[in-house]
Amino acid sequence: MNKNYYAVLMAGGVGSRFWPVSTSTYPKQFHDMLGTGTTLIQKTFQRLNKFIPTENILILTNERYNDLVLEQLPMVSQDQVVLEPAMRNTAPCILYAALKVQKMNPNGLMIVAPSDHWIEDETAFANDVVACFEKCEKEEVLCTLGIKPTFPNTGFGYIEFDKSDDVRIKRVNQFREKPDYETAKDFLTQGNFLWNAGIFMWSVSAIVNAFKTHQKEQYHLFEKGTSCYNTADEQGFIYENYPKAENISIDYAILEQSDAIFVLAATFDWNDLGTWGALYDKLDKDGNDNAVVNAGVLTQDASGNMIRTDYKKVVVVDGLKDYIIVDKEEVLLVYPKSKEQDIKKVLSRVKDTFGDQYA
Amino acid sequence: MNKNYYAVLMAGGVGSRFWPVSTSTYPKQFHDMLGTGTTLIQKTFQRLNKFIPTENILILTNERYNDLVLEQLPMVSQDQVVLEPAMRNTAPCILYAALKVQKMNPNGLMIVAPSDHWIEDETAFANDVVACFEKCEKEEVLCTLGIKPTFPNTGFGYIEFDKSDDVRIKRVNQFREKPDYETAKDFLTQGNFLWNAGIFMWSVSAIVNAFKTHQKEQYHLFEKGTSCYNTADEQGFIYENYPKAENISIDYAILEQSDAIFVLAATFDWNDLGTWGALYDKLDKDGNDNAVVNAGVLTQDASGNMIRTDYKKVVVVDGLKDYIIVDKEEVLLVYPKSKEQDIKKVLSRVKDTFGDQYA
Repeated sequence: MNKNYYAVLMAGGVGSRFWPVSTSTYPKQFHDMLGTGTTLIQKTFQRLNKFIPTENILILTNERYNDLVLEQLPMVSQDQVVLEPAMRNTAPCILYAALKVQKMNPNGLMIVAPSDHWIEDETAFANDVVACFEKCEKEEVLCTLGIKPTFPNTGFGYIEFDKSDDVRIKRVNQFREKPDYETAKDFLTQGNFLWNAGIFMWSVSAIVNAFKTHQKEQYHLFEKGTSCYNTADEQGFIYENYPKAENISIDYAILEQSDAIFVLAATFDWNDLGTWGALYDKLDKDGNDNAVVNAGVLTQDASGNMIRTDYKKVVVVDGLKDYIIVDKEEVLLVYPKSKEQDIKKVLSRVKDTFGDQYA
Repeated sequence: MNKNYYAVLMAGGVGSRFWPVSTSTYPKQFHDMLGTGTTLIQKTFQRLNKFIPTENILILTNERYNDLVLEQLPMVSQDQVVLEPAMRNTAPCILYAALKVQKMNPNGLMIVAPSDHWIEDETAFANDVVACFEKCEKEEVLCTLGIKPTFPNTGFGYIEFDKSDDVRIKRVNQFREKPDYETAKDFLTQGNFLWNAGIFMWSVSAIVNAFKTHQKEQYHLFEKGTSCYNTADEQGFIYENYPKAENISIDYAILEQSDAIFVLAATFDWNDLGTWGALYDKLDKDGNDNAVVNAGVLTQDASGNMIRTDYKKVVVVDGLKDYIIVDKEEVLLVYPKSKEQDIKKVLSRVKDTFGDQYA
């Protein structure tokens, strides 16, 4: 394996649209959402570990998930778990991680990737990432993997690439925020739009330079800790300075500013597992198009449902169509799939009514 | 309290239409179905115990429920729990219990009553029973309490009384099996029909004589054990002879044969809690007509539902109308209230598919 390859796994999110399974004490990435026997973060780690050395994979997460990370990824040492002492969106933690990697290896090439997505073809994934790494090694560019849209999804951001560019890794014209339905349809017609999957690759020098150029203040805040990184002094420095960082996403802070962004259209299938419906799409279905995780199910006139229990519990359902039925010890959710985007609102009503322990 | 008053509580049934709460290992009568803090058998015992001495109340049940009875009714001694070694319907166990009571007290008057019904007005109940006891003390008759029908229910048997009889306790013309809807409507129009609630009162001598007349074989089978009853020899005799008894209900064996049956129209309200819908009717409703037991519920566009959990679990329901939603540790049921009579069939499918442990 190439010793210059590094990964930074983003594992601090809560996945609240997957409530009640995903909660702030036990978020989505630490669950076996597909019932395969592996949690999403374990699956993601394995996928990266096929071409990135174990000790070069950092896990970026919140302090409260430190134990979950070490428990689920026992091959990872505490040094590899990078803890954010405050929630400041993606830019500060990516810069912080990049400076740590740069100090370990100034020739480092790193991928930033979510820990809670689903990718079936792991070889294609590795090939795509390595292709980008090779470009990043030769040129000071920032790369991303874009997903070919299969329908006008209004839940994703889009990446518009340069149509005239006839190489595999194409120059990005601009990042486009979540569009309305008509705009999304227009994107698909135009043909040079990809979904933004939040997967980025760059050399540590390129990303650090990009911060130096486009986010001077943030660059200076974190750069002055360089002598502390990867030493016993790191934690003290970070505790003091991290909370001062601007709350800003890597997309706004860097990607939309830089003119050296390139995109490779992914050759693997991908699912962000962002909602119960997305999970439903990925799962095998029974004869009535019901997707079932863990439960033993008896249905009558029930189809298109997403049914999940924590263990092999018997679920009898009669007459429901296109519902999410999720059962866990302290919560039962019976909710139309068509309203899955409202689960965040439901969660907030549950918190108000019954308290934070259910969230 | 009148020392001649006895009660025989029928507590051997399984209540399978209340699955999954009611199961063969833990039937309905041992559950707190209404969420009042008292199980149905406890409530029934308390109601009878207001005018019948504690030691005069026998519990007729199956061996497997012996421990449940003693646990839930700690004031009852093992001698008061009469165990059927085999399922032989109601006639054999009532005769057996009557012979036991007769040996204790030849002047005994006994009520036979289900342990899993709901009666709100306990004073009215006591008054009605005592009125019948007083008739049974003076005359060799068999009495029953009938319930004034509120709608043409096809799920109950009916008792037709003599219209010309202008006293309170009227002579019964005949017992009528569960009618079809048109017949039930006709019964209501005629006005001299009551629901058969399975509540009977008689002197022990009257019921034993009725068996002697109408069920000679069964009478002789149990009569020859008289010297054993209420002694250490009873169990041996019953184990040997009980299984030989004909499987027949008290209605067929005696009530439809005798011409000395009388009925008193109950002055109390009554609910057999025979189905989830019957339970729903008895419970308080929230602002959307949902009846909730134990659960903490958040609903949206959901009304007329019967929602029950084993403990205070949060249940979020969106868009369901007139459903039964019952959750317990190993089973979740989401089922239309209109099909509640089919829950027995569901139970049998569950047994076939997942095994007897869920039943």
